Amino acid sequence: MQPVDARQYREAMARLGAAVNVVTTADAAGGRHGLTATAVCSVTDAPPTLLVCVNRAARARPFLREGGPICVNTLTHGQQAVSVAFSAFETMEERFATGDWHPGGTGAPVLEQALASFDCVIDRVVEVGTHSVLFCAVRGVGLGDPGQALMYLNRAYHPLGS
Amino acid sequence: MQPVDARQYREAMARLGAAVNVVTTADAAGGRHGLTATAVCSVTDAPPTLLVCVNRAARARPFLREGGPICVNTLTHGQQAVSVAFSAFETMEERFATGDWHPGGTGAPVLEQALASFDCVIDRVVEVGTHSVLFCAVRGVGLGDPGQALMYLNRAYHPLGS
Repeated sequence: MQPVDARQYREAMARLGAAVNVVTTADAAGGRHGLTATAVCSVTDAPPTLLVCVNRAARARPFLREGGPICVNTLTHGQQAVSVAFSAFETMEERFATGDWHPGGTGAPVLEQALASFDCVIDRVVEVGTHSVLFCAVRGVGLGDPGQALMYLNRAYHPLGS
Repeated sequence: MQPVDARQYREAMARLGAAVNVVTTADAAGGRHGLTATAVCSVTDAPPTLLVCVNRAARARPFLREGGPICVNTLTHGQQAVSVAFSAFETMEERFATGDWHPGGTGAPVLEQALASFDCVIDRVVEVGTHSVLFCAVRGVGLGDPGQALMYLNRAYHPLGS
């Protein structure tokens, strides 16, 4: 155990495996926005709430507003291309060209055959350093066909489960 | 997509795979407390911060105080018995009898050969329904030998990585 710097912290964090999600929203003009996020976790089922940590510099961040829609789409191993699109491509047009999308009840884009989709409203935002923590009230859930989950560990993708 | 109830939400959440961690603290009298937690994620590396969601009814919760120590130990697949001990056993004596532990810089117990250990101070607590979200400022990190991570998905343990 030694005092922490950002590089050491990132090295240790690379060892914390996580599910890969694509987080989306829609703006009032119907524009779609999204990004890949691994920092997602369940908070409570009473009331159903999850949280997502998003870099404040992310292109989609200004559209993720308190009271606004957000959908957390948990990816299958077969949807790795969607994760790559939403982390690498510059424009939202290019990103949403990968995968099949439809609007959920809140208006946020839902990915067809995601392992699970959580259609939510952002009900609280806590700012911490470079990141925003979005607390999301779950309004609807979708379940795709069962399959392997897409996980991220040691800076690489892996399948998990069956 | 359909309106959500707690059962549906739990079903969908079972599909969100997560790393298994044992979260510990020490009280002023030297007593050790801990529990198993999968709702852990990185918030930012500037300043190094992670968060942990803990049930307010958990036996260890009253000892996890703002300003107090907390260590997040990310388990290897070989440490599954530690996860079981910290989720199933009643007393803290029984829990800490599994695994080898030493106090970290903050005083919180660190698990020998955890995949990663994050020795932290709790710097903010946000209450959401049945759970508390603990924001933890990372003061030190430890890295065990590389190995497979212990993951939890579909209500079962799985190894991940190599």
